[in-house]
This record gives sequence, structure tokens and C-alpha cells, in this order.
Amino acid sequence: VTDKKVSKAVIKRLPRYYRYLQTIKNEGIVRISSMELSTRMNVTASQIRQDLNCFGGFGQQGYGYNVEQLYAAIGEILGLDKQYKTVIIGAGNLGRALANYAGFERRGFNLVGAFDVSDDIIGTMLNGVEVMHIDRADEMFPVLKPDIAILTIPQRYAAATAAKLARLGIKGIWNFTHAELNAPEGVYVEDAHLSDGLMTLSHHITSGK
Amino acid sequence: VTDKKVSKAVIKRLPRYYRYLQTIKNEGIVRISSMELSTRMNVTASQIRQDLNCFGGFGQQGYGYNVEQLYAAIGEILGLDKQYKTVIIGAGNLGRALANYAGFERRGFNLVGAFDVSDDIIGTMLNGVEVMHIDRADEMFPVLKPDIAILTIPQRYAAATAAKLARLGIKGIWNFTHAELNAPEGVYVEDAHLSDGLMTLSHHITSGK
Repeated sequence: VTDKKVSKAVIKRLPRYYRYLQTIKNEGIVRISSMELSTRMNVTASQIRQDLNCFGGFGQQGYGYNVEQLYAAIGEILGLDKQYKTVIIGAGNLGRALANYAGFERRGFNLVGAFDVSDDIIGTMLNGVEVMHIDRADEMFPVLKPDIAILTIPQRYAAATAAKLARLGIKGIWNFTHAELNAPEGVYVEDAHLSDGLMTLSHHITSGK
Repeated sequence: VTDKKVSKAVIKRLPRYYRYLQTIKNEGIVRISSMELSTRMNVTASQIRQDLNCFGGFGQQGYGYNVEQLYAAIGEILGLDKQYKTVIIGAGNLGRALANYAGFERRGFNLVGAFDVSDDIIGTMLNGVEVMHIDRADEMFPVLKPDIAILTIPQRYAAATAAKLARLGIKGIWNFTHAELNAPEGVYVEDAHLSDGLMTLSHHITSGK
């Protein structure tokens, strides 16, 4: 599988395909046409064909897509065939919820560390790891070698913490703070922006659509 | 302000404009050109002009956008000038994190109730409301009159709970379960799908982009 031709817009849509294919696979379906997938996902069949053509013709005329193959191919493009060491920075309610979010571990995101500044939280266990003071990050990162940091701290600490994480060699930050972070050199930042969904919801309720 | 011409794709992008305009407004900036906004948001200036033209010419040639007006107009389209009564269904870590998420209350989403099934959680306080057993929803909804339910329960209960909420008159569901819900008649469902962001992050780390 080559991802040379996979555009950024297609990449954004792949997680949704992946989720649907997983469901279809779990239902025991072996192959599916772009038309059936279109109905399920509420996307046009031509959009689906266009998106999935990037993967080099898993869909065959009159056969459709091999669900297992397509699922595996998309998983590979998404890097879900790999294992990632993950740390939580900010082990409050949101950090704890994310650490326990079903499916993360199954998809290869393994929690190896958790950090906070609150005396109430430090020393407690979170999904098998002990929460440490953030000041111990310098000492612990070379041991834990985390790939991804999940950032659930107050906005005012976001930029400085991201810079520190970059210095300590983190490759990706999943940002749940309200700050849009300028990605430090060599670090990919994925902003979560939870409130955007709530704003969209608000619009639809108000406009009655 | 009319939203007749505002397409679904533009609506999806409005929360991001809204967040940026809020930051710019807080910085004391009174007007901004599409070019400056473009640089800040990393979107082309023509995209910005196209998106914001829907609002009927806040941008004037040689003047730019009036930040305050544009912010208010987008807020109105998003329904953020209104107040919403919100209930949490599932008051575990994620529910508690969302109830306390800074900015929700400020944007008009007021928590009026919280429901769970766990004896450990029922009777505890969550942001000023007492968590009740979900069985009390039938009795409490006519009193609380909630507009929005935030659903943070296990996937297997999602569909039945959504149907129940619809029957009780909820207008919108913000869905954090792993199930993609078929929206019950008259209810708008906004799926959160937290794991999609993690998958995108995974792709970028793996592909080194």
C-alpha cells in the first residue's frame, strides 16, 4: 500500500471508513459494494470510489470491496498496525476518561505514563500507571520513550508544556486544551476542540435543521 | 442575519472562525482583513471571503471585517446567543470532564441535570446538580425541560437511551458513545468520535508528515 496519492482531505475521512468497515467486518460481511457502503455511511458512492481508489483498486467491478483487505489497508495508512507509547499530561477527569476510553489500547495506543501537578492526583493509579509530578518528565521520558502526549491541562500552560514535550522528543500531541498550538518543529499536533461539536449542535437545534 | 445561503460545509467551519474571532477580539483588534485572518488560520483568503460572504458583506473592500460584528453574527448563526438546558447521561469521568469543561456555561449551555446507573455516582454532586438514577428521567424531564443531552454511556445502551431521550422531548444529542446513532425523528445527533483524532495523529506520526 502506498499513501503517496492520499490527500489530506481523504486522510481526514479515513477514520470514519475505518470505523464503518470494522462494524461491517464484525457483522461477518466479506465484501461490500460502493453502493451499499454509500447507503450505510450516507456518502455518495462516487465519493467513496474516489476516496478509496487512492489505495489502488481494492474495489473490483461487479465484486465490490473485500472488507477485510480494505480495513487492513486503511488501518495501515492510519498507522494502526503499529504500537504507540502514550502519556497523559493532566490526569484530571478528562485525562482519566481518555486513558480509559475503550478502543485506544486495542488500536495500539498504550499508556506508559501520566503526569499532573495536583497533590490529590499524584501517586494515584490510572489504567495501570502511577501518576507522577510533571517535574519528573525530564527524568522519566528517556526511560518511558513516549511517542504521543495527550494534553489535558489548563490553556495557560499549553504552549510552554508543548515546547517542553517537543524538547523531550515527543512525536505527536493530542491537544484538548482550548489553545490552538503552533506545532513545535518535528511534532504533529492534533487539536480536539470539543466545543466545536457543541456549537454545531447548537446551530442545528436553533435553526431546526 | 440570514442563514438561508449558509451551506452545511460552511456551518462545519464556523466554530473555528468563531474561536479565532474570539481570540482576536480579546486581543483588542477591531478589524481584520481576509488576508490577515488567512495567515492566522492557515486557510486561503479566498476561502475565507467565500465562507464569510454568506453573511452578507461584513467585509468591505479596503476595510476588512469588523471583528465584533462578525463574531456576533457567527455566534447568532451558531445559536450561541441562546441558552440551552443540558443534561449529562452518564456521569463517569468523561461526563464529569464535559460538565466542567470551561466555556460551555459561558456559551449558554447550562447543566440542569445528570443521570447515571452506578450507586457510587448517584447522589454525588456534579457542577451544582445532584446525579440521579436514569430511571428518574421520565419524572424529571418534564420538570427540567432539557434541550440537549450529552451521552457518555457504554455503546450497547446508546440506541435505546437515544430513543428514550427522543420520547422525552430532547432536541439534540451530543454523542460520545462509540455507536453512530441513527437520529430519532426530530432529534439532531452530533457524534463526537474522539478516536478519529487519535487515528489522524497516528497517521501523521507514522508517515512523518
